Amino acid sequence: MNIGLDMMGGDFAPREAVKGIQLYLNENPSASVLYATGDETQLQQLFQEFSIPSSSVKIIHAPQVIGMDEHPTKALKEKQQSSIAVGFHLLASGKIEAFISAGNTGAMMIGALYSIKAMDGVLRPTIATIIPKENGGSGLLLDVGLNADCKPEHLNQFAILGSLYAQHILGINNPRVSLINIGEEEGKGNLLAQAAYPLLKENTPINFTGNIEGRDILIDKTDVMVCEGFTGNIILKLAESLYEIAKQKNINNEYFERFNFENYGGTPVLGVAKPVIIGHGISQAKAFKNMIVLAQKMIETDLMAKMKASFKQD
Amino acid sequence: MNIGLDMMGGDFAPREAVKGIQLYLNENPSASVLYATGDETQLQQLFQEFSIPSSSVKIIHAPQVIGMDEHPTKALKEKQQSSIAVGFHLLASGKIEAFISAGNTGAMMIGALYSIKAMDGVLRPTIATIIPKENGGSGLLLDVGLNADCKPEHLNQFAILGSLYAQHILGINNPRVSLINIGEEEGKGNLLAQAAYPLLKENTPINFTGNIEGRDILIDKTDVMVCEGFTGNIILKLAESLYEIAKQKNINNEYFERFNFENYGGTPVLGVAKPVIIGHGISQAKAFKNMIVLAQKMIETDLMAKMKASFKQD
Repeated sequence: MNIGLDMMGGDFAPREAVKGIQLYLNENPSASVLYATGDETQLQQLFQEFSIPSSSVKIIHAPQVIGMDEHPTKALKEKQQSSIAVGFHLLASGKIEAFISAGNTGAMMIGALYSIKAMDGVLRPTIATIIPKENGGSGLLLDVGLNADCKPEHLNQFAILGSLYAQHILGINNPRVSLINIGEEEGKGNLLAQAAYPLLKENTPINFTGNIEGRDILIDKTDVMVCEGFTGNIILKLAESLYEIAKQKNINNEYFERFNFENYGGTPVLGVAKPVIIGHGISQAKAFKNMIVLAQKMIETDLMAKMKASFKQD
Repeated sequence: MNIGLDMMGGDFAPREAVKGIQLYLNENPSASVLYATGDETQLQQLFQEFSIPSSSVKIIHAPQVIGMDEHPTKALKEKQQSSIAVGFHLLASGKIEAFISAGNTGAMMIGALYSIKAMDGVLRPTIATIIPKENGGSGLLLDVGLNADCKPEHLNQFAILGSLYAQHILGINNPRVSLINIGEEEGKGNLLAQAAYPLLKENTPINFTGNIEGRDILIDKTDVMVCEGFTGNIILKLAESLYEIAKQKNINNEYFERFNFENYGGTPVLGVAKPVIIGHGISQAKAFKNMIVLAQKMIETDLMAKMKASFKQD
């Protein structure tokens, strides 16, 4: 497998990205070849320092960097030699099978949507996150911020994408799919949720189990939780803050430890034609390693083909 | 003060409501006269059992009960002798100055909106909840479910109502008011948040401090957090579940203890002409006591007059 990694993205790049590669290669010595986009001189020195074998990592020189606060569209257009733009060129041309970055989130989104593009039939690609369940399991929440305003058919498509991701990546057999809502019965909710419910009910390829409420998000009542990106983003960031709060209050509990985003690495962009994974700006070694592992899994399971097949049937 | 209390509402009524009255009277022996609506015979026995002095509590006989699962509009119309309907008659006629119930939430809403009605100028009454902040303070979140779909001007009015509540009931001087959003800068968010931001910015009677994100909800970054009722309800129920989860995991931390809704009692309906407080169905003695304390505070501070004055200036 050929996996691309932006070495210059994120607050602790490139050093933590290199350390992430080291962690990954320790556990997966010959599974993949990594294509590291970034400044060649800097990377060569770091790879030497961390004894990264050149057989496992190819440096693809990219002299420019898109800053975390740059305007995404403008930066991506003007900085064709940036580590993100170069990564998307590699992905579009087929030289790599997945691309990962903890850099400018907007630029990664724009790259995924316009350089890679949505799968045929997918109206709106989406981003998802893992939500730790209090019984030890994991749920998938989507959309978590890419689509702040949605139509019912968008939610219905998120349900399909999320269901396939839960099945193939999280290993959940016949995942339960639910609509996040403010009441349990059909007919409850805002106009969007009211209109999405019947679509989800008739969406036979998924195992729709109805509405869930806010109190069900952290418990094992469902596997895939669907909502528009406004609510989803609020839930995601509220959940992430629980890790910080628990740490600050010296609550040493395994459950709240699981709200540390480093455990999951990054957010996959679902519904685009190729695997794209976006990391948190404050990603460190463990997060980078986990993003590479996730990319590997998305390639190994041929998740993209499965998603494409789902939308071709429509 | 004359405060009305539905004795038949909630899963543990009337016994826990009676115990709540006892707790309240122990702490506030002669502040109020309570008007207890419900079955006279049953209540007389319980008041005797708990030694509730008849000088402090008047029983208003209401032979009917609206069940927790009954259709609100239908039940309220057909059961004119129910403890909820009788309470609203007392409130509308001025015999009581506030009305409290832990019974059928829908019936309480309908009663508040149609029997008491919105204040002049208020487009949509709203419901609010206290959110415990990790530094020990308290924030106010609204709307938490009454208005699942909102227009920008509704959010702008919630900001005024919430600001006055925070000032007079929570005792926060010049409360910071923020818009819940998925980004910090103006222009971020869904269409509703984008359109609400400029209204809030120009709303000079409030101290608008801009957007907050999901990660700011539990920290002391703001006092009043405004959103539509869909997102607000998800946040509220997610927050409530933290108490249960912490308890189940034997995390004995003061902070998570504060997510126990019993500490707050009930949810005030803001923007209606008279104080109406709706309790959780599973309210017990402490929650009933706290709802009576809240009603007393709403009357003492003349919150309704302050709200009415705010909307008259518009």
